[in-house]
Amino acid sequence: MKKVLFATSALVLTAGVAAAEVAVSGDGRMGVIYDGDDAQFSSRARVKFTLTGESDAGLSFGGSFRVDQENYNANAYRSAARGTAGAVWISGTYGKLSMGDVVSASEAAIGDLYEIGYTEGQFANDIEEITYLTGDGANLDQGPSILYEYTVNNISLYASASDGVNTVWYTTPGTNAHGDDTGDTAYSLAAKYDGSTWWAALSYAKHGDASEIGLGAEGKFNNFAVKGVYMSYDDRFDGLDEWKYTAGLAASYQADAVLVKGFWRQDKFDLFGGGTEKYDSFGIGADYDLGGGAVLAGGIIDTDYLDDTVVDMGIKFSF
Amino acid sequence: MKKVLFATSALVLTAGVAAAEVAVSGDGRMGVIYDGDDAQFSSRARVKFTLTGESDAGLSFGGSFRVDQENYNANAYRSAARGTAGAVWISGTYGKLSMGDVVSASEAAIGDLYEIGYTEGQFANDIEEITYLTGDGANLDQGPSILYEYTVNNISLYASASDGVNTVWYTTPGTNAHGDDTGDTAYSLAAKYDGSTWWAALSYAKHGDASEIGLGAEGKFNNFAVKGVYMSYDDRFDGLDEWKYTAGLAASYQADAVLVKGFWRQDKFDLFGGGTEKYDSFGIGADYDLGGGAVLAGGIIDTDYLDDTVVDMGIKFSF
Amino acid sequence: MKKVLFATSALVLTAGVAAAEVAVSGDGRMGVIYDGDDAQFSSRARVKFTLTGESDAGLSFGGSFRVDQENYNANAYRSAARGTAGAVWISGTYGKLSMGDVVSASEAAIGDLYEIGYTEGQFANDIEEITYLTGDGANLDQGPSILYEYTVNNISLYASASDGVNTVWYTTPGTNAHGDDTGDTAYSLAAKYDGSTWWAALSYAKHGDASEIGLGAEGKFNNFAVKGVYMSYDDRFDGLDEWKYTAGLAASYQADAVLVKGFWRQDKFDLFGGGTEKYDSFGIGADYDLGGGAVLAGGIIDTDYLDDTVVDMGIKFSF
Repeated sequence: MKKVLFATSALVLTAGVAAAEVAVSGDGRMGVIYDGDDAQFSSRARVKFTLTGESDAGLSFGGSFRVDQENYNANAYRSAARGTAGAVWISGTYGKLSMGDVVSASEAAIGDLYEIGYTEGQFANDIEEITYLTGDGANLDQGPSILYEYTVNNISLYASASDGVNTVWYTTPGTNAHGDDTGDTAYSLAAKYDGSTWWAALSYAKHGDASEIGLGAEGKFNNFAVKGVYMSYDDRFDGLDEWKYTAGLAASYQADAVLVKGFWRQDKFDLFGGGTEKYDSFGIGADYDLGGGAVLAGGIIDTDYLDDTVVDMGIKFSF
Repeated sequence: MKKVLFATSALVLTAGVAAAEVAVSGDGRMGVIYDGDDAQFSSRARVKFTLTGESDAGLSFGGSFRVDQENYNANAYRSAARGTAGAVWISGTYGKLSMGDVVSASEAAIGDLYEIGYTEGQFANDIEEITYLTGDGANLDQGPSILYEYTVNNISLYASASDGVNTVWYTTPGTNAHGDDTGDTAYSLAAKYDGSTWWAALSYAKHGDASEIGLGAEGKFNNFAVKGVYMSYDDRFDGLDEWKYTAGLAASYQADAVLVKGFWRQDKFDLFGGGTEKYDSFGIGADYDLGGGAVLAGGIIDTDYLDDTVVDMGIKFSF
Repeated sequence: MKKVLFATSALVLTAGVAAAEVAVSGDGRMGVIYDGDDAQFSSRARVKFTLTGESDAGLSFGGSFRVDQENYNANAYRSAARGTAGAVWISGTYGKLSMGDVVSASEAAIGDLYEIGYTEGQFANDIEEITYLTGDGANLDQGPSILYEYTVNNISLYASASDGVNTVWYTTPGTNAHGDDTGDTAYSLAAKYDGSTWWAALSYAKHGDASEIGLGAEGKFNNFAVKGVYMSYDDRFDGLDEWKYTAGLAASYQADAVLVKGFWRQDKFDLFGGGTEKYDSFGIGADYDLGGGAVLAGGIIDTDYLDDTVVDMGIKFSF
């Protein structure tokens, strides 16, 4: 049962070793964030485990989570050992089924806008991320969710769902499991057509009265890429205000080791007190690939969600 | 940059590498639990570290804990770095001495009933586990416990103990260590005779006024296995009721890749208000080995401890 | 004793594998501590990740943290993924720049007294550690700090600083980042001259009104080593009392596999109510190297900070 870390996966494969294994990878970053008032140091180091195996009949299975996603006693909603962080999956000719803190079908098909800066948008509260109605942490009071993905030729189909049961203790029903089990199933459906240089996707999600219809497309032409996302919400409330839509546009240009990226995003709300309000967000940044897993990166984001224009500049690593 | 774990320690050993090493392994599972009212998704992914080394004189030493057992700042009672989760050990010709969140001598000798279902009994609050009086988390207010194991020929001897000192801060005595140090040493002794196809064990444990006498035996004949456990308690209280005994019986039958398992358990209490009450628990389940570390499994458990019959069905992985 | 994925990095390099990798190492210990009143079991097991990489231009980078240093949801001040535990760094011909929970320039140059016992001083609240004014956890309310180190010939220069901004949420400024941002930059400068058998260092640190001047030197002659540290504080308060200085002396003698170590330390305070008080601390201990990463060790510490003389005896492991 002992495993020793070895560095050449080639050798492992040729040696015909059993498939089940745990891979350890990591990432890090260091730099400075200007938060509108002050410049601050910001750094991090993380480690990720990727578990993979294959049954005798060729069924692939696996799981993955990061060390910082295992908060067993601190937060039952953020624990891979409780199914509320990371995910496990099985995969075969019939598609791939994942369970855990999975993204919704909508997000799996459409995704987010491009990440800016060495903190990958975190210096502006990840405003490049679309706030999907379901999945990816949105329904963890119901425990793990599932995501099913199936691709045939150019078409990918996605379906995701929570189990509709609020539980006191997620992974183990028991005497205390029946206190508050009147949740609404949060589900999502999506389809994507993938051409050789572009894709387009359509999605739907529902949780209780709230629903979401999404549209996304991306094209890549030579060194240039552009992506558009439009999410229309119905009966979705952010506090007392009703969230009507999120529209976003992102573009990038690769010139040798330099990747320039930018995005624009607009969110519209019908205010509780009457009237509407639009929040605009802009970001622009550049990555410079130093090779070997190191990337110099910086970004500027101006968003109505923050009072200030924020800037980051630093270096990010992958191991 | 992912790193792959290499599986053949043989290669490493022939290369003459030093013995001290950290092995990384993992497990996972996904499936559905019916808790008597609702069906719920339940999944998890975990990673375990196993540390091993050998001194120049041939003394083996090591330790092990899982990522979810390291809750340093969240729960001092569940932290491998504080000795209150996982364990470390030394081992040689004189036997093996472990320290940490070890099991009691009773549990080391006798163990639990057979685990049912893909959640290995967790879907019914692990009712197949005997609730030993000492060790395995029962005395963590005293910090780490010790377990000593010695085997000569067919006979194994076990002894375990807590240190009898309640401490505010487990691993570091100091100015605040003397607040509440009036604990009772929790200890246990056990002996086991291991025949070729069967074993039998006798155990004793004591903590304060409470004591436990245990008897266990298991036989394996061809594809059939059966195990019986009887634990008699004296002056052991569960709230105001006095716990008199736990009796359990488990059996399994292996037919090719299929392993069918079942257990029965009875607990008797003398009620505070007068009279007695017996709690019966039954479980039956089957594992189907898919190879490569994947096992399809399901179980049904009916126990007086829960109001409902609970069911699980899913797939479990080891990496 | 670091453990690399594979023990011969030479082999890995000759195979032309990319440099970026995650090494997993560990440590453990078990033994008994006498806290002045009672003997207590004390053990632990820990795992450390060391991330290393190199850019195309030869810039080295990396990071490291232990599993118990990642308390993402339990304690934002003790999380490698937030930059408040462990550290990341880049290193080249211009020196080494680290960010995270780094030590101060003072501590990097001068360090602590010798560690005694199998718990390496923890059984007496690490009284052998100099309580540096800045860095190493002292300023984590400001998030990550930086440490710069540069060595030319026999001279090493050190500089460290916090960013002077108290943040609610360290790694991500945003709407809630401006609540309390009136921190004082904590910084430190140090220089060290390293002869062949001895070194001497001078340091300065400042945080708000408080300042620290430090002097350290160590000599190693055959099997004998001796180290002296003197830290003078100005306007540094411990509660209402003013901390004037810390003086310390440590010595060790190696005889084959046995290493005998001792230290003395004195702290002087001007009391709020008038008068002064001196706290003396003494420690003596011995390590016996069993080889393969196992060391038998014990120590006795008598300090005015504790009412009792405390003792530890046990075995410590590195994997």
